Amino acid sequence: MSVDNTAMFTDRYELTMVSAALRDGTAQRRCTFEVFARRLPDGRRYGVVAGTGRLVEALAGFRFGEEQLRTLTDIVDAATLDWLRSYRFSGDIDGYREGELFFPGSPILSVRGTFADAVVLETLALSILNHDSAIASAAARMVTAAGTRPIIEMGSRRTHESAAVACARAAYIAGMASTSNLEATRRYGVPGAGTSAHSFTLAHAGVDGDGERAAFTAQIAALGVGTTLLVDTYDITRGVATAIEVAGTALGGVRIDSGDLGVLARQVRAQLDDLGATDTRIVVSGDLDEYAIAALRAEPVDAYGVGTQLVTGSGAPTAGMVYKLVEVDGIGVAKRSSHKESRGGAKAAARAARDTGTIVEEIIHPAGSPVPQTDGLTTTALQIPLVRGGEPVAELPSIADSREHLAAALVSLPWEGLSLSSGEPAVPTRFALP
Amino acid sequence: MSVDNTAMFTDRYELTMVSAALRDGTAQRRCTFEVFARRLPDGRRYGVVAGTGRLVEALAGFRFGEEQLRTLTDIVDAATLDWLRSYRFSGDIDGYREGELFFPGSPILSVRGTFADAVVLETLALSILNHDSAIASAAARMVTAAGTRPIIEMGSRRTHESAAVACARAAYIAGMASTSNLEATRRYGVPGAGTSAHSFTLAHAGVDGDGERAAFTAQIAALGVGTTLLVDTYDITRGVATAIEVAGTALGGVRIDSGDLGVLARQVRAQLDDLGATDTRIVVSGDLDEYAIAALRAEPVDAYGVGTQLVTGSGAPTAGMVYKLVEVDGIGVAKRSSHKESRGGAKAAARAARDTGTIVEEIIHPAGSPVPQTDGLTTTALQIPLVRGGEPVAELPSIADSREHLAAALVSLPWEGLSLSSGEPAVPTRFALP
Repeated sequence: MSVDNTAMFTDRYELTMVSAALRDGTAQRRCTFEVFARRLPDGRRYGVVAGTGRLVEALAGFRFGEEQLRTLTDIVDAATLDWLRSYRFSGDIDGYREGELFFPGSPILSVRGTFADAVVLETLALSILNHDSAIASAAARMVTAAGTRPIIEMGSRRTHESAAVACARAAYIAGMASTSNLEATRRYGVPGAGTSAHSFTLAHAGVDGDGERAAFTAQIAALGVGTTLLVDTYDITRGVATAIEVAGTALGGVRIDSGDLGVLARQVRAQLDDLGATDTRIVVSGDLDEYAIAALRAEPVDAYGVGTQLVTGSGAPTAGMVYKLVEVDGIGVAKRSSHKESRGGAKAAARAARDTGTIVEEIIHPAGSPVPQTDGLTTTALQIPLVRGGEPVAELPSIADSREHLAAALVSLPWEGLSLSSGEPAVPTRFALP
Repeated sequence: MSVDNTAMFTDRYELTMVSAALRDGTAQRRCTFEVFARRLPDGRRYGVVAGTGRLVEALAGFRFGEEQLRTLTDIVDAATLDWLRSYRFSGDIDGYREGELFFPGSPILSVRGTFADAVVLETLALSILNHDSAIASAAARMVTAAGTRPIIEMGSRRTHESAAVACARAAYIAGMASTSNLEATRRYGVPGAGTSAHSFTLAHAGVDGDGERAAFTAQIAALGVGTTLLVDTYDITRGVATAIEVAGTALGGVRIDSGDLGVLARQVRAQLDDLGATDTRIVVSGDLDEYAIAALRAEPVDAYGVGTQLVTGSGAPTAGMVYKLVEVDGIGVAKRSSHKESRGGAKAAARAARDTGTIVEEIIHPAGSPVPQTDGLTTTALQIPLVRGGEPVAELPSIADSREHLAAALVSLPWEGLSLSSGEPAVPTRFALP
């Protein structure tokens, strides 16, 4: 597989800092950078890590070839260009696995290497983790709201074309069932799904009046009766009747994309049942977020399609993670400017749970020190090795593993942690630091 | 220049609709699809079109090669695979130029071709236009709020790594001065800018106490005294004093990234002036949005750095545009489902202005019909040709042209249209349709 070049997904200041640090030797100091979020988005109870796997993949493409260096000749000096030409990250990275919960202060990623080696990864690491974690965090709430009903991710048309692929991946990790995005299916194997658009029905206009019957007939001829027909282009009641006339009672599903979805779902369910199409599923879509999904719990809905609200993080489109230098040559460092204090020193994290599996706190402790224990609680370390000597470790979790991991992690939350209402983080973070 | 493949940035249903439409001949019907936004984000007075240039470029890469087709063998039939293998868009596209204002209902893009040719572009067109226009629309408000002061776009770390490049491009069109994003400089020639991070100062810890003096010395050695030093890692007053001691009074600038920026800017300005550094500029950053920028108007700030709020569209991360079939074989079509009515028929648009240049209304009229005239007003057509017979037209506006166009267009708004407060669109949209 060819590797896309990722080196220029970088802020200019990373490279000018390298150029200055090469001059005075700071470039070679041993450093640890950490990625964490100071807080969760307003009212959110937990965050979900996603993007770690994409970041590890992107490292392989982080190379400055002649094409990249041409742009940089006016920006940094010749010594820096030489350094960049031979740059390969050779340090170590530990981090929370994808599908792991996180809380304020959780050290989601720890990057160890020389200052220069590690600082140049800041932009790439934050871009990927901030985006993918924001999407996974929103998606997990929607999945929880949907209960056992599947959600189809169909937000590609509402976000940047490449971001859309990452959204589909993050949403799948978070428990969504499938995606409309073809590239996510190709690149990551995310199961695909799709119905049809109103344009398909309208394109048949004139064939038989408004074209709905002709459109349904064509779709079933191409995709079989297991397909899902979009029934709300004109009148929904007539659309459902036509759908069953054309497809028979074995029709896979109907989709409703507008109107009062709860009321319509009940009407359509009754109509389908009257027609004998008792197994025909009802898929609803149209600006659904976690609250709208929850509001439909008592309605006869079989699946949800979500788009805009998923790819915009349902009000929190970025995860607020920062990439901070915490240790230099073994000594903790931290800035002291107002409102943005950091905690110095390389850190690790563990999560304490009761025998029932319910978690009670996130514990941040110095890296390399034993995990603080509490009587009656089981404590699990949260970081796993991701990169050693610049190379990905052999056994990184697959996205299917990450999906399972999150499903189990959500069950470990105290009950109020799964509430959609605003509140404090589901468990407190304890900083067991010197 | 190699062209990236863009064909898989597509929702599965576009291709299954093609497969169904190929069977019954609908695929060959002559269609017009239009892109428009039903409304502006809450309280916004105008939107700014961006992404059109990226879309036209992306068309050249919209090809289904064997690599893409392998993923599709389980999704569509052999006839459809053959059709996709030879697919090249061969129709025409007109649209609003980049940097054009838009309002509810503005036909931002008109795509004409066969149903199959045009429907497959839905996802790509909406992804690009929804993303880039959301960013440009937010950026324009920030630029207006900043008045004559430049804004540095530095949001790459808060959004998807590829989206970040498009953000920098859209922000430049909207009038921002420069970007931190190296790929935006390489690919689009957006002017670059950058300062340094707190990590750079912290990495010098121990060299001379907390390392601030050593860090400033190294940065100036590498980048010259014209550089901008980050002075808020520890104590700002001491940071400023050290900066001028190290750089002299010719120091280019200082950056403040935390705290009460207005108060700090005044303190730092007074301190710099006392030290004789009267030309040293003050750059402020830290979660700035258009309101925070406006609130700093009376403070001695020379430039703003914006990040998170820019790349998240300052509360409106997607532009709400849809891609709707409006005409089939010369006949207008429209769906009739609740709350999402469309207006059938291919449309064009014009904007009417007084002699003073102030605009008074957006007029949507049937494509091919003369622009409705009003006594005493000058009317300007808004769509330009973008693609003819599948190929980009010869003279597409550059991003510099688009930037100038927007600057002039903003001046044409009625005064309340430039207000940051919530309200109605700056001018009404009149649908002069049958």
